[in-house]
Amino acid sequence: MSACVHDPDLFTNKGSILITGTRIGDRNVDIFIDETGTIRDIGEGVSKKCRSEAEHQISAEKTLAIPGLVNAHTHAAMTLLRGYADDMHLQQWLSEKIWPLEAHLTGEDVYWGTKLACLEMIRSGTVAFNDMYFFMEDAARAVDESGIRGVLCHGFITFGLAEKFESEVKATENLVSHIRGMNNPRITPAVGPHAPYTVPPEHLEWCGSYSKDEDIMLHIHLSETEQEVIDCKKAHGVTPAVLLDQCGCLSERTLAAHGCWLEDEDCRLLAERGCHVAHNPVSNMKLATGRAMPYPSLRSAGVNVALATDGCSSNNNLDLFEEMKVAAIGQKFFWKQDTLLPAEEALSMATSCGAKALGIPGGSIVVGQAADIVLVSLDHPSMVPLHNPVSNLVYSASGCQVSTVLCNGRVLMYEKEIPGETAILSGAADAAAGLLNRAAQNT
Amino acid sequence: MSACVHDPDLFTNKGSILITGTRIGDRNVDIFIDETGTIRDIGEGVSKKCRSEAEHQISAEKTLAIPGLVNAHTHAAMTLLRGYADDMHLQQWLSEKIWPLEAHLTGEDVYWGTKLACLEMIRSGTVAFNDMYFFMEDAARAVDESGIRGVLCHGFITFGLAEKFESEVKATENLVSHIRGMNNPRITPAVGPHAPYTVPPEHLEWCGSYSKDEDIMLHIHLSETEQEVIDCKKAHGVTPAVLLDQCGCLSERTLAAHGCWLEDEDCRLLAERGCHVAHNPVSNMKLATGRAMPYPSLRSAGVNVALATDGCSSNNNLDLFEEMKVAAIGQKFFWKQDTLLPAEEALSMATSCGAKALGIPGGSIVVGQAADIVLVSLDHPSMVPLHNPVSNLVYSASGCQVSTVLCNGRVLMYEKEIPGETAILSGAADAAAGLLNRAAQNT
Repeated sequence: MSACVHDPDLFTNKGSILITGTRIGDRNVDIFIDETGTIRDIGEGVSKKCRSEAEHQISAEKTLAIPGLVNAHTHAAMTLLRGYADDMHLQQWLSEKIWPLEAHLTGEDVYWGTKLACLEMIRSGTVAFNDMYFFMEDAARAVDESGIRGVLCHGFITFGLAEKFESEVKATENLVSHIRGMNNPRITPAVGPHAPYTVPPEHLEWCGSYSKDEDIMLHIHLSETEQEVIDCKKAHGVTPAVLLDQCGCLSERTLAAHGCWLEDEDCRLLAERGCHVAHNPVSNMKLATGRAMPYPSLRSAGVNVALATDGCSSNNNLDLFEEMKVAAIGQKFFWKQDTLLPAEEALSMATSCGAKALGIPGGSIVVGQAADIVLVSLDHPSMVPLHNPVSNLVYSASGCQVSTVLCNGRVLMYEKEIPGETAILSGAADAAAGLLNRAAQNT
Repeated sequence: MSACVHDPDLFTNKGSILITGTRIGDRNVDIFIDETGTIRDIGEGVSKKCRSEAEHQISAEKTLAIPGLVNAHTHAAMTLLRGYADDMHLQQWLSEKIWPLEAHLTGEDVYWGTKLACLEMIRSGTVAFNDMYFFMEDAARAVDESGIRGVLCHGFITFGLAEKFESEVKATENLVSHIRGMNNPRITPAVGPHAPYTVPPEHLEWCGSYSKDEDIMLHIHLSETEQEVIDCKKAHGVTPAVLLDQCGCLSERTLAAHGCWLEDEDCRLLAERGCHVAHNPVSNMKLATGRAMPYPSLRSAGVNVALATDGCSSNNNLDLFEEMKVAAIGQKFFWKQDTLLPAEEALSMATSCGAKALGIPGGSIVVGQAADIVLVSLDHPSMVPLHNPVSNLVYSASGCQVSTVLCNGRVLMYEKEIPGETAILSGAADAAAGLLNRAAQNT
């Protein structure tokens, strides 16, 4: 057994790990993880029992151990567009800034953007994410290298065009086959119809069937803006949620992002079908959606609500600690209920609810579970005093207090060190600069 | 001249300082600060000119230099109550949790709570704050030691009782005299009538006159909740802002905190009188005030709006980076205007507008100004790419990206190191534990 600080093999995915001296809530515990990455023992006496057996040791005094966070909806490679355009009218922002730049994206850009996103997520304690974008085989390569979990789908947009439908089906089928071929248990494919307003009912039907036939997640944007709900009712006579149901797109495999303008009956329908909703409060506020996701209705209907950052062009970071706080205070504010979405629920949203929504291991620290564990440093003024660990995590901490991250039993960050970080930062900065150059040359 | 990393005198307030290789916005600059703490030169060639003259040097490659942030309304020592009670109904929270604990506060508690607050503020780039609490001579001692700027007032609450009025006047006068006796240019006194609903008109009148006679700030809570506006109209026939005006409490020396329920005419009145407003979006959302401060009306009326965290029991941290972001996205969301409060304005709110409101130096990095300078590290995934530095500062960074802090030309944090931090963290933790013990013994 070797101490981590001089342990060259710590990051290599080999051997069992003993975490000593951390705490879970109010309990002081050690955690033993076996060589398969599974949590084998948790408790006060564990270090005595397992010290001789452990191949690596992590001294975790002055930390809180929490489950690795789960980002339930993002467009990871949009890190490259961080800060490129803000504070604009939505349509102008999309048509004059985001879409023209995205038209010049390459697979290599998406690879570097996703590398940067994974790095940022690891640094802020996120070990799994649900992604929708383009060039997803390149994204898969980045996720594979990063060590975290990803559910990946190609953003499927047809605008009703038969030709586009054919190419989107092909892109989706190719991605599913590619990811299955990777045979990496951390990476799973999904089908990603972008939204009911960009994919018409007949194409949504294909997505619904495909999700069922392949037993994969269906990831979609739902009722983010008021306008799309108005338009849907006008065109189809029903809300977007009901339209999705008619197209066979609502099931326990469905993850719907946003849901700001869901009606009470929509919430009940989503609950009945066993769907999951991803709440993106920062993005919703930044884009001035005008209504907060109806958490009270979703909660009372029994819908599983996960937490998400959305992409970096509308957030502009991937820090789920910030998102937990904004969710907890934003829901209280908008629905005028000072006890709504307490800290415990915000933490569950970002952990167990996210893992459930994505159908992945993790989300809790229990024996027999994969070791997706984040150590949060208590050695920071914002974590003192520690009257209530969960309150400090949600209302006071930021992702920067995360010191050590494990996913599937593998150490991805140790005391703020992530191997290869410098190369990723410069590779992503270069890719962003190249993208802007290409776009400038073409205008 | 000695390089900082081996420079034992760096934290001692002695001698001139040359900051090399940083950037302000898109410009690469060096900054030279003379031995009085005043910025003497800024530009690309400054290091060549001043290197021989500088007694200390700070290498600031891969950083952005911004003015030190200003926290325009807080109750600093409430750091001791961080996480003690959350997610409760407002009245129950106050009467069952906060007030009973505060009844056991001692001057020593306030000293340690304020020490912790100053530490947390330095760590997140804040160099000045406007404070209202109790045992303020102990708070002044903590601010003096911290090296940052403080405007301090005793929370003046009478509920109309003559005896209480007498003691509050005395506490205020004593504090003003005590602070003047300290003769520390970083610390200034203020008069702090808590709110129009806790201090009746005749006592407000004394505060207004005292502020004028002594030429000191008047710091007050204003129109935070809907209920207090309704009650004020019922009792006095006018809004709280108009009532304050009738009592001689509105002037260019007035800083009004919150203002969530200000009416359009109130905004015009505050503008006419030259008052300043402190926006506390996180606290307002957490306490479910139900309405965002009317920034559009305040802005068009021409009121100077500063930014603030409020106390740690309703936030629960003192990070103005987080507050900038929540202000920028919260205003957009609540007022349904996607271009409202752009990043540049949020940064001004937290810097120049705050300095103006508090009547202190700082708030900008210009020659002849006191060196209140914060270096923000660009070496973090959330700061890559750097399409727009101000956007990254407001929407993507957190206070943890602050690496080095100067106030009045003195280095308070250098590459994340703050002398004496460990002792402050343990002293504050002990004070918080002692406070809870005393409260438990008395119930």
